[in-house]
Amino acid sequence: MQTLGKKAQHAAQQLSRLETKQKNDYLIALAFELTNQTTTILSANQKDIAQAKNYGIPDPMIDRLRLSADRIWEMAESIRQVASLPDPIGVVEKMWRSEDQLMIGQQRVPLGVIGIIFESRPNVTTDAASLCFKAGNAVVLRGGKEAFYSNQALVHVMQATLAKCELDPAMIQFVSDTSHEIATEMMRSSDYLDVLIPRGGAKLIQRVKNTATVPIIETGTGNNHVYVDGVADLTMAVNITVNAKAQRPSVCNSIETVLVHEAIAPTFLPLLEQTLVSKVELRGDAKALGFLNHGVLATEADWSTEFLDYILAIKVVSSIDEAIQHINHYNSKHSESIITDSYFNGQKFLNEVDAAAVYINASTRFTDGFKFGFGAEIGISTQKLHARGPMGLEQLTTSKYIIYGAGQIRES
Amino acid sequence: MQTLGKKAQHAAQQLSRLETKQKNDYLIALAFELTNQTTTILSANQKDIAQAKNYGIPDPMIDRLRLSADRIWEMAESIRQVASLPDPIGVVEKMWRSEDQLMIGQQRVPLGVIGIIFESRPNVTTDAASLCFKAGNAVVLRGGKEAFYSNQALVHVMQATLAKCELDPAMIQFVSDTSHEIATEMMRSSDYLDVLIPRGGAKLIQRVKNTATVPIIETGTGNNHVYVDGVADLTMAVNITVNAKAQRPSVCNSIETVLVHEAIAPTFLPLLEQTLVSKVELRGDAKALGFLNHGVLATEADWSTEFLDYILAIKVVSSIDEAIQHINHYNSKHSESIITDSYFNGQKFLNEVDAAAVYINASTRFTDGFKFGFGAEIGISTQKLHARGPMGLEQLTTSKYIIYGAGQIRES
Repeated sequence: MQTLGKKAQHAAQQLSRLETKQKNDYLIALAFELTNQTTTILSANQKDIAQAKNYGIPDPMIDRLRLSADRIWEMAESIRQVASLPDPIGVVEKMWRSEDQLMIGQQRVPLGVIGIIFESRPNVTTDAASLCFKAGNAVVLRGGKEAFYSNQALVHVMQATLAKCELDPAMIQFVSDTSHEIATEMMRSSDYLDVLIPRGGAKLIQRVKNTATVPIIETGTGNNHVYVDGVADLTMAVNITVNAKAQRPSVCNSIETVLVHEAIAPTFLPLLEQTLVSKVELRGDAKALGFLNHGVLATEADWSTEFLDYILAIKVVSSIDEAIQHINHYNSKHSESIITDSYFNGQKFLNEVDAAAVYINASTRFTDGFKFGFGAEIGISTQKLHARGPMGLEQLTTSKYIIYGAGQIRES
Repeated sequence: MQTLGKKAQHAAQQLSRLETKQKNDYLIALAFELTNQTTTILSANQKDIAQAKNYGIPDPMIDRLRLSADRIWEMAESIRQVASLPDPIGVVEKMWRSEDQLMIGQQRVPLGVIGIIFESRPNVTTDAASLCFKAGNAVVLRGGKEAFYSNQALVHVMQATLAKCELDPAMIQFVSDTSHEIATEMMRSSDYLDVLIPRGGAKLIQRVKNTATVPIIETGTGNNHVYVDGVADLTMAVNITVNAKAQRPSVCNSIETVLVHEAIAPTFLPLLEQTLVSKVELRGDAKALGFLNHGVLATEADWSTEFLDYILAIKVVSSIDEAIQHINHYNSKHSESIITDSYFNGQKFLNEVDAAAVYINASTRFTDGFKFGFGAEIGISTQKLHARGPMGLEQLTTSKYIIYGAGQIRES
């Protein structure tokens, strides 16, 4: 870890001085090489899939793990998109003359070395590396054992392409030891890592939070809600709830619970059940069960669980305040949506719900760097420090003040 | 700590909804009360000063601790300035229409509950509390035992004024237990605190870094340098070095080491010594001692020590690259300055030195929220995440995305 960290710091210094064109040339070459190596990458991925079934990993998780020619093409496409984004580095966001006649400018600079600890989805490997690279940062990647062969194959392509472009392969490094001990060592390498971004389930995030001395950005836990207000378009409410729950339940921007105002529950819930039945297990509170044929009684634990599966918790509330209170108590501060035709309730929800993204009349599934227009994303921050919500290039930088003087000294 | 944390969270919710006028009215009332209570505060401060002498705390530290009617007036003035600053909360910094026709806005919101662990300077109490308050955050203050009576008196005034303004006194809370155990508990209260800002010496910062599970913002360690380039205005170089070292050595934006290009060392060092002699102890490397009458030989440890005292380390270098390398190796990423008449060397120094504030031809003493024009500051961040350099109001906020839809669902 120490040797790797020192190499990363050295590579980060070189990287921070690359011109935009050099960075883009590399990314474009990488996208090309990635599709070029589709067969090799897929056969490595096959090894992981085979093992995942042996490990007894549930199907939605295997969905996250599986690559295809199409997904590799999407990964390459997303790298090309990163290449096409403006370079954030060097931009002076503001500059002013102080009372002491100093010219003070705030300039964007790279963070340095970024560590990524992630699970399952191998596309994280290329998304994270390309974004870190474009923002001028060296990256140290540590994937889970379940995607080991896929990650290894992807990093191999990235490092070989660095060498081809006459760049230091240490700009993108891979921790090939998947043990707990190495992960712990990485979390406490504050001498070498400037930031650590964990991407994965709640357990991983919790472990990193408790262990890391490196500053972290929490990502990815999504215990999200749709609240169907008393006056709402019924079809819209059903469509959004179904989309937010079932279009891809394994991702963090889908929902786990729908809260329904009691005035609309008698018409909304039967419609919802009709659409979801046989596809999604419904766990309702006592009131909700009164309007459902196939629901089971929800437990207290259901309100705070991120199912990541075809399970939906349902609670009937008697007011928007009860809904907001429930959300602010149980949510993971990720994405929340209200379906309403009331102007004031919509505004109230926006103002009072504490989350990275708060919607009126739209699916939570849009909380995503691509959908927000940032290009590929490195994760969705659910913490309040540094970055909140989808993190693109800008969130992978910091700033420094550059100050032009004329001999000024401070008198008091 | 739990009870206190829950009260703080509750108070933070109310605080986040206060109108700007309510917040400013409180701050103006507080500034008034503070000067009003000067006698009470000074007599509390006297108790601390008396104890500090018993503890054997060194003089520059006692300087940090000592209040006077003037300093209390400055504290009140700085609160009035916070009141006069624009309210950062509610500002929508950008808003755009996404490809899916969602209106996405990024709005400034409070962080929530901010913990401050600090040492010595009692003015931190009111600076920190007023900034946190104006930015819509509840604050939990934990000062050191050496300023216990001063802090207690100041918090008493702040809470009494909250009550007078019919606000919840839990918006500004004080941890009256100064034990290590309580500090540790506070550092690990990630259920109640959104951010923890330690203000104090290197030991405190290190302890917080190793212990905290609450996200932290590192502040205040300043191992800073002035580099006198080969071609530089001699008088300016001496003035800036003397100012940066000796105008107030106990603060974090003063310097510890001067690096001198060998071409200018024979003229610069005797001049510097002449100005500093009998006031500052000089610790030079072998080359530097050749030009000094009263220097002692610097040890390796001197290059990485924040003396916070009338001690200056001196090193002669043979190139700007050697100076930059020394700085990037030993500095604490706070403030660095080059004195030069060379355009290219100035630009090179700005680009290659890694620090929160990098100066050409000015004293490092200007790294300060007031001097930057931010109003009072809550500290100077030396980390790269969230905020870097002097932290004013804006750095005490986060953002949330507010999204206006028209029924959008995600297709893929």
